Amino acid sequence: MQKLVDGIHEFQRNYFSQDQKLFETLTEGQKPLALFITCSDSRINPNYLTQTKPGELFIQRTAGNIVPPYGTVHGGEAATIEYAVSALKVKDIIICGHSHCGAMSGLLDPALIEKMPAVKSYLEHAESTRRIVDENYTHIQEADRRLILTVQENVLVQIKNLKTHPSVAAAVGRGELKLHGWVYKFETGEVFNFHPDEGQFLPIQAEDIVLSDLELDRTLPPI
Amino acid sequence: MQKLVDGIHEFQRNYFSQDQKLFETLTEGQKPLALFITCSDSRINPNYLTQTKPGELFIQRTAGNIVPPYGTVHGGEAATIEYAVSALKVKDIIICGHSHCGAMSGLLDPALIEKMPAVKSYLEHAESTRRIVDENYTHIQEADRRLILTVQENVLVQIKNLKTHPSVAAAVGRGELKLHGWVYKFETGEVFNFHPDEGQFLPIQAEDIVLSDLELDRTLPPI
Amino acid sequence: MQKLVDGIHEFQRNYFSQDQKLFETLTEGQKPLALFITCSDSRINPNYLTQTKPGELFIQRTAGNIVPPYGTVHGGEAATIEYAVSALKVKDIIICGHSHCGAMSGLLDPALIEKMPAVKSYLEHAESTRRIVDENYTHIQEADRRLILTVQENVLVQIKNLKTHPSVAAAVGRGELKLHGWVYKFETGEVFNFHPDEGQFLPIQAEDIVLSDLELDRTLPPI
Amino acid sequence: MQKLVDGIHEFQRNYFSQDQKLFETLTEGQKPLALFITCSDSRINPNYLTQTKPGELFIQRTAGNIVPPYGTVHGGEAATIEYAVSALKVKDIIICGHSHCGAMSGLLDPALIEKMPAVKSYLEHAESTRRIVDENYTHIQEADRRLILTVQENVLVQIKNLKTHPSVAAAVGRGELKLHGWVYKFETGEVFNFHPDEGQFLPIQAEDIVLSDLELDRTLPPI
Amino acid sequence: MQKLVDGIHEFQRNYFSQDQKLFETLTEGQKPLALFITCSDSRINPNYLTQTKPGELFIQRTAGNIVPPYGTVHGGEAATIEYAVSALKVKDIIICGHSHCGAMSGLLDPALIEKMPAVKSYLEHAESTRRIVDENYTHIQEADRRLILTVQENVLVQIKNLKTHPSVAAAVGRGELKLHGWVYKFETGEVFNFHPDEGQFLPIQAEDIVLSDLELDRTLPPI
Amino acid sequence: MQKLVDGIHEFQRNYFSQDQKLFETLTEGQKPLALFITCSDSRINPNYLTQTKPGELFIQRTAGNIVPPYGTVHGGEAATIEYAVSALKVKDIIICGHSHCGAMSGLLDPALIEKMPAVKSYLEHAESTRRIVDENYTHIQEADRRLILTVQENVLVQIKNLKTHPSVAAAVGRGELKLHGWVYKFETGEVFNFHPDEGQFLPIQAEDIVLSDLELDRTLPPI
Ligand SMILES: [Zn+2]
Ligand SMILES: [Zn+2]
Ligand SMILES: [Zn+2]
Ligand SMILES: [Zn+2]
Ligand SMILES: [Zn+2]
Ligand SMILES: [Zn+2]
Repeated sequence: MQKLVDGIHEFQRNYFSQDQKLFETLTEGQKPLALFITCSDSRINPNYLTQTKPGELFIQRTAGNIVPPYGTVHGGEAATIEYAVSALKVKDIIICGHSHCGAMSGLLDPALIEKMPAVKSYLEHAESTRRIVDENYTHIQEADRRLILTVQENVLVQIKNLKTHPSVAAAVGRGELKLHGWVYKFETGEVFNFHPDEGQFLPIQAEDIVLSDLELDRTLPPI
Repeated sequence: MQKLVDGIHEFQRNYFSQDQKLFETLTEGQKPLALFITCSDSRINPNYLTQTKPGELFIQRTAGNIVPPYGTVHGGEAATIEYAVSALKVKDIIICGHSHCGAMSGLLDPALIEKMPAVKSYLEHAESTRRIVDENYTHIQEADRRLILTVQENVLVQIKNLKTHPSVAAAVGRGELKLHGWVYKFETGEVFNFHPDEGQFLPIQAEDIVLSDLELDRTLPPI
Repeated sequence: MQKLVDGIHEFQRNYFSQDQKLFETLTEGQKPLALFITCSDSRINPNYLTQTKPGELFIQRTAGNIVPPYGTVHGGEAATIEYAVSALKVKDIIICGHSHCGAMSGLLDPALIEKMPAVKSYLEHAESTRRIVDENYTHIQEADRRLILTVQENVLVQIKNLKTHPSVAAAVGRGELKLHGWVYKFETGEVFNFHPDEGQFLPIQAEDIVLSDLELDRTLPPI
Repeated sequence: MQKLVDGIHEFQRNYFSQDQKLFETLTEGQKPLALFITCSDSRINPNYLTQTKPGELFIQRTAGNIVPPYGTVHGGEAATIEYAVSALKVKDIIICGHSHCGAMSGLLDPALIEKMPAVKSYLEHAESTRRIVDENYTHIQEADRRLILTVQENVLVQIKNLKTHPSVAAAVGRGELKLHGWVYKFETGEVFNFHPDEGQFLPIQAEDIVLSDLELDRTLPPI
Repeated sequence: MQKLVDGIHEFQRNYFSQDQKLFETLTEGQKPLALFITCSDSRINPNYLTQTKPGELFIQRTAGNIVPPYGTVHGGEAATIEYAVSALKVKDIIICGHSHCGAMSGLLDPALIEKMPAVKSYLEHAESTRRIVDENYTHIQEADRRLILTVQENVLVQIKNLKTHPSVAAAVGRGELKLHGWVYKFETGEVFNFHPDEGQFLPIQAEDIVLSDLELDRTLPPI
Repeated sequence: MQKLVDGIHEFQRNYFSQDQKLFETLTEGQKPLALFITCSDSRINPNYLTQTKPGELFIQRTAGNIVPPYGTVHGGEAATIEYAVSALKVKDIIICGHSHCGAMSGLLDPALIEKMPAVKSYLEHAESTRRIVDENYTHIQEADRRLILTVQENVLVQIKNLKTHPSVAAAVGRGELKLHGWVYKFETGEVFNFHPDEGQFLPIQAEDIVLSDLELDRTLPPI
């Protein structure tokens, strides 16, 4: 703990003055670019990874970057997403999984979390991930590849869950919000994003989204 | 979005190599110093504030740094806390509120969140905060002071909620885990922590905790 | 009631013998072609509409053909879907809305259901529908067109909810299950189905599905 | 699927015109005789069995014709029942179990549904059925008789659950709603209904109800 | 508080020795005659009213002697009932309402409990009572008579809820458990119990039950 | 049952007249001294133990004197506590555990409650108790001592849960409500209360509370 307190004092002495103006401006309100949903894992620092400044990323972090479908639990995820979309009007939501994720390891090997009933219960929102990997990837059994694959599929599953949130559904429907599925390999610094047209995660190049054009900016003619 | 992608490319070109060794070591597992619970607010960067490196802080972020009591919702908060305490064996948990918090503004003025049912529902876990401020602080009506006070009381309320989590209760009882209540004023760079003996938040100096000694490291004699 | 009893006696006298062999064969088990999810509305008879015999359609009916996302309520919808996919291995799921739906009228005009708390509560699973219509269709205010449009959008919303069910997600992923969105106009006998490529509902012609090819029969390469 | 589309086209060509007038009249609203609650099983067609026309039966179908008690899950069953009683003012509710029910087989043999967590969870609303059969019918062990008996007891259990729904309790109390417990043996075409005075299910003859006279049309004198 | 401590000391000095033998015997286990469910109201003392000694009554007390239907909330009521029936094998359950009940006043006049969200939420399990009184007793508007009537109807509603508990349903079915509905008018010392055959509450004379004979000790012949 | 009816008649003949005046006065409303939360156990009679009269103790009783944290289940405990504090304005809440508690035995030995799913589920609100005893009291294995210790720790755990209730948190904060943790050894007539300063339960002497002074009557200065 003393380390953290010392760190704060160092921040106050050596860094705060650089951003003081920015911080003072931000008292008038935040206007973040995006909602960034990722795992609580200590090895991830979203601001460092994206080189963003205070005020730029609204960040939601719980174990396994899980997004319970709307209505399941009136928990923090639904509130945070709704606030980001309805109050802050973010234009993008990123769900970012990561390599070596402990939550995903627990999903693959329930013995690891047997004595953690709350973790077990939360992972029910990744039950689709578990079934997809269990039933559709029998050809990949090697542990490392199976884990990273689970991380990848889980990002896509959580994006499906995300689409059930009303604020997201409405904003996506009128083309004002885009959803992105990323995987961060912290040990190499690589970030991959999902390309729906190619059906795979590729090294991030430019602004890619996980929605087909047809989902975006669509209104139906009444029949 | 392009800004974030550009930021990642900059991180990969100019920063990753500095921490490459650290990141590679961390593939063997994380061993964070503490669980840091704070708001999703874009103006907060826990690693920057505490000058910590990847691997040092396990971070939970949802709107309003709220911790539903154990059993309320089997949501991300309970799972993340349980994983931090039972699997990672963190020694400290910090709940860190902050100035100008939008969630706390919504708690004081329900009109602000009337069209956000998920936010409204989540703030029920801060109903104690609302009642304490409403009933016990009639002498403070000035808006700014009332908001920061709400942030302060909410940190203490959420610590009470945190104490209902079994992993926390057991680890605190045997003296292996300490709980800390902080408030971060981002516009001045100040951090305050709660001193139970003085009944107030003071500028952080050293390792302070919100528990009386009697709660820590205690076993009862059977009657 | 006497009418129903008389109807049963007529069925037993005049109709049962025609299908007796079929019914006897069916004691060995059902093997339905599809799960048909529709409203409880008395004006819909799925078997009559599709000219199917006993044993061909597994049918789920609740008000508004609503499918709560997985995990929301451990209710009949989740169980019925899971049984259809995991135990009966249906190859298709149809969600079929209909014209003049009372549940959708209630969604558009809450005054109609003010004294029906259970209906109100159930319609929270169509909150995405409500927001989409409210926010994205301000250009269509004429009551009849607005209602049929709500029925159409609700079919698409419930298909999104359906995709969060693990048995569905896994079977869709390996190309063994297809999802279909239909609207039935009982007063004209017309049935429309959703074409994702054209972004609209068209008179049903052939086996159309609401999934893009990319969602079907896809396995990812590990990154 | 093509079979269903072909069936619709056949319906449109050969059947719709017969009922066209009826369907057009029904656009003004439905006025069903009864709410018919039965299993999703593909071998049941309530309209065929009772020889009813469109507009006559409001139909609720989920696996096992289960009715969670009021307040348990704010799911489709509560909403559908409330809508039928409060909005449509049906005069009768029938709960109709059936022979060879897969849900009831799963209740008797949990191994059958071990991998179906949503089914398992839903069957908790038939836990009374399970305990009644397990504890009170040790004298009947032959599998077929035990299954049909389970179906019978489950109809009575679900009627008890139905009585906890406020709209039902109030309408039954003033004699405007009657409850009926049926079992349908599809392989013989027989329908049995429960006679409270005789304590058994008998071949349906006339309008029988499962309530004693004392439950119907009763107001208390204040003490 | 000092009054309570003084009372304990008086109990220890003057009363304990009288019952000491009984208390010592009871360390071997309790074998209560009945489960007595009543309101938390301070004006009720079940042991005094029934002149019972320690060990004779297992007592459940929450506001309004409400029994949520099984599965609604996994709360104290379900656990207490299950323990009484399954572990202690009580032969009788009494639900005892009382005159001047504050919870029932709140049910009739929601303004009284507007600022008590937990009370409001709990009274949803008495929503049947509210609707029955509201819809079926328009002929009784005088406040005192309406309140006692609400208490009476609520006892019957809670008995319906009680019947959904599996342990109760099974034990009632085999004739080992009887259910009783009482109302206690504390200001006159009168106790009334419900007679199903007469459809009213009468001054208690002998062992009366709220079940018709047909509900008790019944096994069905398989059809 | 006849025994209870006879007891009531004896009460009416021989005891009621003594308290008739008190009872009549109490029709104007109750003004209890305290909320007394204890187990449903038949061996406990709170009024006898504290020598209190009708009108003096508001009493909540469920198995194991468990208090689910606020928001967990909208059950009877939350409503009863809220009513006692907000409507009746009690000045003290006592949570009173007792020796030989069956619920606490079930917590220590899950085999005892394996067939009681509702009890098992309710005991999740004592999961902190279970973990504390399991992890921190390995030095006490003797069954009797371990059980009484569990009772003691459970009282403290439930007081932590009680503090999450908003009405309690606000009233404690302004010094209008005090919380007390007691254990009653019925076989000796002893009552112990918890002394936070000494970290143990001691024979009750005077008005002791489980809160440190700092928790009581505290308002924060805004930072
Ligand atoms: Zn992770
Ligand atoms: Zn904030
Ligand atoms: Zn409809
Ligand atoms: Zn069935
Ligand atoms: Zn009362
Ligand atoms: Zn006990």
